[in-house]
Amino acid sequence: MGEGDKRAPVDYGGYLQLDRLLDCQKPLAESVGRPAHDEMLFIVVHQAYELWFKQILYELDELERLFGEDPVDDRSMGPADRLLGRINEILRVAVQHLDILETMTPLDFLEFRDVLYPASGFQSVQFRMIETRLGLKRGDRMTYDSQPYDARLTDDDRGRMREIDQKPSLSELIERWLERTPFMETGGWTFTEAFRSAVNEALDRDIAYLRDDSSLDADHRDREAARLTAAKGRFDALFDADAHAAAQGEGQWRWSMRALQAALFINLYRDEPVLHLPFRCLSRLMDLDEALTNWRYRHALMVQRMIGLKIGTGGSSGSDYLKMTAEKHRIFKDLFALSTFLVPRSSLPVLPESLRASMGFHYSPDSRRKG
Amino acid sequence: MGEGDKRAPVDYGGYLQLDRLLDCQKPLAESVGRPAHDEMLFIVVHQAYELWFKQILYELDELERLFGEDPVDDRSMGPADRLLGRINEILRVAVQHLDILETMTPLDFLEFRDVLYPASGFQSVQFRMIETRLGLKRGDRMTYDSQPYDARLTDDDRGRMREIDQKPSLSELIERWLERTPFMETGGWTFTEAFRSAVNEALDRDIAYLRDDSSLDADHRDREAARLTAAKGRFDALFDADAHAAAQGEGQWRWSMRALQAALFINLYRDEPVLHLPFRCLSRLMDLDEALTNWRYRHALMVQRMIGLKIGTGGSSGSDYLKMTAEKHRIFKDLFALSTFLVPRSSLPVLPESLRASMGFHYSPDSRRKG
Amino acid sequence: MGEGDKRAPVDYGGYLQLDRLLDCQKPLAESVGRPAHDEMLFIVVHQAYELWFKQILYELDELERLFGEDPVDDRSMGPADRLLGRINEILRVAVQHLDILETMTPLDFLEFRDVLYPASGFQSVQFRMIETRLGLKRGDRMTYDSQPYDARLTDDDRGRMREIDQKPSLSELIERWLERTPFMETGGWTFTEAFRSAVNEALDRDIAYLRDDSSLDADHRDREAARLTAAKGRFDALFDADAHAAAQGEGQWRWSMRALQAALFINLYRDEPVLHLPFRCLSRLMDLDEALTNWRYRHALMVQRMIGLKIGTGGSSGSDYLKMTAEKHRIFKDLFALSTFLVPRSSLPVLPESLRASMGFHYSPDSRRKG
Amino acid sequence: MGEGDKRAPVDYGGYLQLDRLLDCQKPLAESVGRPAHDEMLFIVVHQAYELWFKQILYELDELERLFGEDPVDDRSMGPADRLLGRINEILRVAVQHLDILETMTPLDFLEFRDVLYPASGFQSVQFRMIETRLGLKRGDRMTYDSQPYDARLTDDDRGRMREIDQKPSLSELIERWLERTPFMETGGWTFTEAFRSAVNEALDRDIAYLRDDSSLDADHRDREAARLTAAKGRFDALFDADAHAAAQGEGQWRWSMRALQAALFINLYRDEPVLHLPFRCLSRLMDLDEALTNWRYRHALMVQRMIGLKIGTGGSSGSDYLKMTAEKHRIFKDLFALSTFLVPRSSLPVLPESLRASMGFHYSPDSRRKG
Repeated sequence: MGEGDKRAPVDYGGYLQLDRLLDCQKPLAESVGRPAHDEMLFIVVHQAYELWFKQILYELDELERLFGEDPVDDRSMGPADRLLGRINEILRVAVQHLDILETMTPLDFLEFRDVLYPASGFQSVQFRMIETRLGLKRGDRMTYDSQPYDARLTDDDRGRMREIDQKPSLSELIERWLERTPFMETGGWTFTEAFRSAVNEALDRDIAYLRDDSSLDADHRDREAARLTAAKGRFDALFDADAHAAAQGEGQWRWSMRALQAALFINLYRDEPVLHLPFRCLSRLMDLDEALTNWRYRHALMVQRMIGLKIGTGGSSGSDYLKMTAEKHRIFKDLFALSTFLVPRSSLPVLPESLRASMGFHYSPDSRRKG
Repeated sequence: MGEGDKRAPVDYGGYLQLDRLLDCQKPLAESVGRPAHDEMLFIVVHQAYELWFKQILYELDELERLFGEDPVDDRSMGPADRLLGRINEILRVAVQHLDILETMTPLDFLEFRDVLYPASGFQSVQFRMIETRLGLKRGDRMTYDSQPYDARLTDDDRGRMREIDQKPSLSELIERWLERTPFMETGGWTFTEAFRSAVNEALDRDIAYLRDDSSLDADHRDREAARLTAAKGRFDALFDADAHAAAQGEGQWRWSMRALQAALFINLYRDEPVLHLPFRCLSRLMDLDEALTNWRYRHALMVQRMIGLKIGTGGSSGSDYLKMTAEKHRIFKDLFALSTFLVPRSSLPVLPESLRASMGFHYSPDSRRKG
Repeated sequence: MGEGDKRAPVDYGGYLQLDRLLDCQKPLAESVGRPAHDEMLFIVVHQAYELWFKQILYELDELERLFGEDPVDDRSMGPADRLLGRINEILRVAVQHLDILETMTPLDFLEFRDVLYPASGFQSVQFRMIETRLGLKRGDRMTYDSQPYDARLTDDDRGRMREIDQKPSLSELIERWLERTPFMETGGWTFTEAFRSAVNEALDRDIAYLRDDSSLDADHRDREAARLTAAKGRFDALFDADAHAAAQGEGQWRWSMRALQAALFINLYRDEPVLHLPFRCLSRLMDLDEALTNWRYRHALMVQRMIGLKIGTGGSSGSDYLKMTAEKHRIFKDLFALSTFLVPRSSLPVLPESLRASMGFHYSPDSRRKG
Repeated sequence: MGEGDKRAPVDYGGYLQLDRLLDCQKPLAESVGRPAHDEMLFIVVHQAYELWFKQILYELDELERLFGEDPVDDRSMGPADRLLGRINEILRVAVQHLDILETMTPLDFLEFRDVLYPASGFQSVQFRMIETRLGLKRGDRMTYDSQPYDARLTDDDRGRMREIDQKPSLSELIERWLERTPFMETGGWTFTEAFRSAVNEALDRDIAYLRDDSSLDADHRDREAARLTAAKGRFDALFDADAHAAAQGEGQWRWSMRALQAALFINLYRDEPVLHLPFRCLSRLMDLDEALTNWRYRHALMVQRMIGLKIGTGGSSGSDYLKMTAEKHRIFKDLFALSTFLVPRSSLPVLPESLRASMGFHYSPDSRRKG
C-alpha cells in the first residue's frame, strides 16, 4: 500500500467485479426474437463450470510447480495433498450442477437448442486444458467423427492446446517423482525381488480357488484360468524391462516400470511416516480420475435425456461418444490396475529394520513419552 | 435459418462471454505485493454464489409474474412448482460451496484477510434482494450493531433495496393467492367450523397424555400443560379476527387469518386433484425456508472456524450475528407453525361429496377405464 | 389410550429392535482367526443398502397397488408422485454410501477378501427383486459367464425370483396406464396425425442443418444424414403398427405403440392441469433410471479400484461386467429415446378448445378471482 | 479354517444375516390396528442411523487405542487420520438421511406419532455414547426439563453411560497427546515467548482498524474495542497458568494450557513434515464438530417442520431444546476459538534451523535427487 495508504476502501461488489461478472449472461434466443425462459439457466450453469475450471487450472499451476522440483521438497507434500483434495471437492460439487441443469426439461431445452448451433461443450478449451495438463495428450484422445478432437476449436485455442501438449503433464511429473523414490533397494534388500515371489503366490492362490470351485463349469474355469495366467504375464511385465516396454506399447500401462514399482511400494508400506503423504497423493489421484470418469458418464446420460438420439449442437452423435470417452479418456488408470498386484499385509515382505528406521522422523520419538 | 440470415456461427466461448467472465478474478493481495495463493479460491467461490443469486432472482421474476395474476391460472401451477424446485436444487448445491471454501484453512485466509477490509459478504446486494423479494422486509431484519442492515451498502444499492422493499414480496403474493382459495365454504359446510372441533380434540388429547405421564414430575407437567393451553389459545387466534390481529401484532404470524386457514385446508386435503399442486408449492416454500436457514447456520460455523472470535472483515462480531439471523430471518415460518394444528386423517372432517367432485378434473374419469 | 390399554410403554430401543439389529454384524475374518479391521465397515455399508432396498420394495408394493387399478384414481397421482420421489431420494443418498466404502483402501479390503469367497453382491436378492419389479425381466438380463443371472442364487431365492418374474412389473403397469390415456382423439382431432407432420418437419430441419454445415466433410455429412434418416424411420415406427412391432422385436422399444404415443402426448402438453402429475411421474421414472444407471457405473469403478483386474469374490470378471450392465439393464430407456421426437412448443399442434377445457378442473376457475 | 476346511461356502445373505436384519422392522401402528404407510420409512431411517452409530463407535474403539498409547506411534497417525476421515464421511451422508425422512409429510407422521409415545430419539443410547466418548461428559450436558439428560434412558443404559463417563474421552486423549508435543522449547528458543509478541501485535492491529473506521459510530467502536480487549485478555490466559485456570473455570476453554499451546504450534507450523498429520487430525476434529453441530441444527428444523409447536414424542418442548444443544453440546470448540490467535505467516516467528531439521525425515532427502 503506497503513499499515505490512499487505497480506496474495498467494497464487496467492486472486489468481485460484479458489474462485469453479472453482465455476461446474454440469452441468444431472446436476441433473435424467440425468448426461451430456461436459456438463462443453461448459461449460468455453464459459466459456473467455467469458473471452477479456472480454479482447477490455477491449482494445477501450483501442483506442477511443487512436483516439478527435483527433488520434491518434503514440505511440499502437505500443500500438494491439500490442493488435490480441493480439486476433488470442486469436482464433487460440480458434478451436482447437472442436478440443477436437469430441472430443465427436454422440451424446455428444445426452445433454444437450435440457436446455439454449432456451439458445443466440445469447445470448452478450459476443460480440454485440464485434461491435457493432467495427462491426456493429443495422441490419447478418441477422434471424433474421424476428426481430431480439436477440429472445432478456434485457431487460437487450437494453438494454445498444442503448446500445452508439449509441456510435461501432471501425470508425467508424478511419474518422474515416483521414479526417484528412494528406499527400494538398500543394503542387499531389493523390494522388487522380495515382492515378486509374494505376488506370484497370491495369483496362484486365486487360480487354485477357481480350480476348486465346483459351481463353475469347465468352460468358465478355463476362461478364468486363462485370464489369471494373463494377469501373471502382466505382472511379470512390471519387473522385466522388455516385457514392460511391450505392454506399454499395447497401451496396458502409461507409466514407466520404475514408476509403477514405486507406486506399488508406496501403497504397500503406506504406514511408514515418510510414505504417508505420497500414499495420500496417489489416492487423491485415483479419486480425481474416478470423479472425472463419473462426471463424463453422468454428462452422457443427461445429454441422452435432453436430446435422445438427435445430434448434439456441436454435431456429435448424441451421447454415445461421451459415454465412450468416460472409459477411454482415463488418465490415472495405472493406479487402478495396480490393485491387481497388491497382497495382504500378512504376505508382505518385512522391511529391514535399518530401512524402516530411515523412513521415520529425524527427532527421537522418545521425546514424546511423558516424563 | 434461411438465406439472408447472416448471423455469425455461434461458438461456445463467445456465447458464454468467457473472455470477460474469466477476466473478473483480480486477487487484491497480489496487487499490493503480498500474493496469497488461496485468495483466488475465495474470489471464485463468491463469484459462483453471485451467479446462482442472479439465477434465483431471475426465477423470482417469473414466480412473481405467475403468482401476481388474479386469479392464478391453473396452468401456471406446474411451472411454479418446477421453478421453486429449481431454486431449492440451486440452494442444495450452493450450500456445498462451503465445503469447497473450507479447503482453505484459517491460516491461509489470514494471508489476505486484512486487504479485504472493510468489504464484507454483508454487502452482497443480490442476496439481500433475494431475501427481500421472498418476504424479509426492512422491518423484519435484525439491526446490526444498532445500525440498519443496509448501512454498509453503497448509496445506489441502498436505493435499489428501498424500491424493492415497496413491492409485493413472493410471501405477500402467496398470501393473497391463498386468501382466494375457493372450496372452504360451500352449501352450508364450513371448513373452519368443522375443523375447529377436530383440532381442539387433538390438543386435548396431548394434554391428557401429559396428565397420565407418571415419569414426569408435577412441575414439568404444569409447565407443559401451560404450554399446550397457550397452543390452544394460539389456535383460536386462527379463527377469531381480533385474536389473530393481536397474535400477528406480537409477531406470532405473518400471514392473514384467511391465508393461514387456506394453507391448513390445502395441507389437510392435499390429495384432491385441485389441491395437489398448491400443496407441493407450499412444501417447496418450506424446503426453501429450511435450506436458507441451514445455509445461514453453516455459514456462521464456517466464519467461526475461519476467524474465531475476531471481527469479520465487515466489522461484524464474528459469527454470532450470523447465527442469530438463521432463526430470526426466517420467512415462511408460518408454514412450520401450522404443523401444530394438523390432525390425523382419521380425525379429519369429511368433505361433502359435491365439494369433492368439484375438486376433481372436468373430463369424465370413466373415459380412463379400459373398454 | 384409556384404562384397560395395558400396552407397555414404548421405548426407542425396543421399538427399533436394536438388540437384534445391532447383533447382526459378524465379521468372518475374525471368526477364522485373522481379524481385519475394515470388515465391519464392509458389513455395515452392505446392511445399510439392504435396509434401503427393503424400503424401496415396500414403496413398490404401494406403487403397484396404485397403478394396478383400472382406471387409476386421479387422487392416487399425488401419492404416486411422492413415493417415486422418495425412492429417488433414497437412491441419491445410497449412491453416496460408496464414498463411505471407499474410505477402505484396496489393501484393507485384501485383508478379508478371500474369506468372503464365494459370496458376492450378485446374490443380493432384494436388489434383483427391485430390478425385476421395476421391469427388468429374466429375458432382458445379460448372462453372466454364459450362465443365467440367477445361477448363484440359493434355490429359495431363485424360486422367489421366478415368481416375481411372472407378475406385472411397474413398467408394465405404467405401460397399461399410459395406453388408457384419454384426450388423444376427440371430435375429429387426432393427436397422432397432428403431431406426425410436426416432427417430420423438425427432423428435416436437422438434416438441413447438416447439409449446410461446411465444417463437416462429405463423409461425416453422409453418416449423419444416414443416422437421421434412420431416426425418421424409427419415428414412423411410432405410428405404424407393423413398423413398431418390428422395431420392438429388435429391442428398440419396450413399450407398445399406444403407450409411447401417450407418453409423448403427456410430455408435450404437460401444462394442462390433468397432465401435470402424469408428466411428473414420467420424469421421476427417468430420474430413477438415471440414478440406477449411475449407481451401477460408480459401483463398477469402485470394484475396479478395489480389485484391479482380479476376479470378484463371486467369480465375476472384475468390473467390466458391471459396467456393461449399467447400459444394458436400463428399464425406462424408452422415455429417454422419446426426447428424440419432441418438438419446440412453437411447432406444437394447438389443442382444440373443447379438449383443452376438459383437461382442466371441474370447479369454475372464476371462483378464484377476488370479488 | 479348521479340519479339512469344512467351512460351508459363504453366501451373501447368510454373511450379512439378512434373515434377521430384515425381520427387525415392526410398525407399531399396524399392530394396534391403524396401519400408517410411512411408519416403515420412519423405522428404516432410524435403523440406518443406528447402524452408522455402531460403525462410528467401532472406529472410536480404534481411535482410543491409537491415541491411548504413550507415546503415540508415528505410524499410527496415518490410520488415525483415515478413521477420522471415515467418521466424517459417514456423518456427511447420515445428515442427508433427513432429506429422505422429509419425504414424509407432517400429516403422514401424524398418522402414527401417538403410538410411539413416549419413545423418543433422546433414548438412542448409541448416540449418547458417541457424544460422551468424544468428550461430552455428564456435566457438560444441558439438563432437559430440569432433569438430567439420562432420566429417560432405561436403567441398563443409564448404567452403561455412567461407566463410559468415567473413561477418558477422545477429547481427553487428544489433550494428553497434545501436551506431549515436543519441539516447543529447544536450545533456548521458546515457542510461547516468540509467539506471544506476534499475536499481541495482530490484535493491536485489529483494534487500530476499528479506531480508523469512520463508518462506525463511537458506541460501536467502544463496544468492539471492549470485545477485542477481552480477546487480548483471553489470549493472555493461554500463557499464564492462573489466568488459564480462571478462564477454564468459566467454561471458556476445555483443554489445558499446554494442550492449547501445542494445538496452536501445530496449526502454525503445519508444513513441517512431522506436524503434517497432527495438523490434519486437528482439522478432522473440527470437521467432526462442525458436522455434528450442523446435524443437530438440521434435526431441530426437521422436528419443527414435523410437529410445529407440539411436544415431541419423548415430551420435549418441540425443537427449541434441540436447537440449543447444537451450540451448547459442542466438543472441540477450543479448536475454533484458537483461530482467534493465529497470525499471518509473515508475522510468524522463524523456527531455529536445528529445530526445523529435527522435524523432517530421518533419511537424507538428497537421495531423492535424480543421479
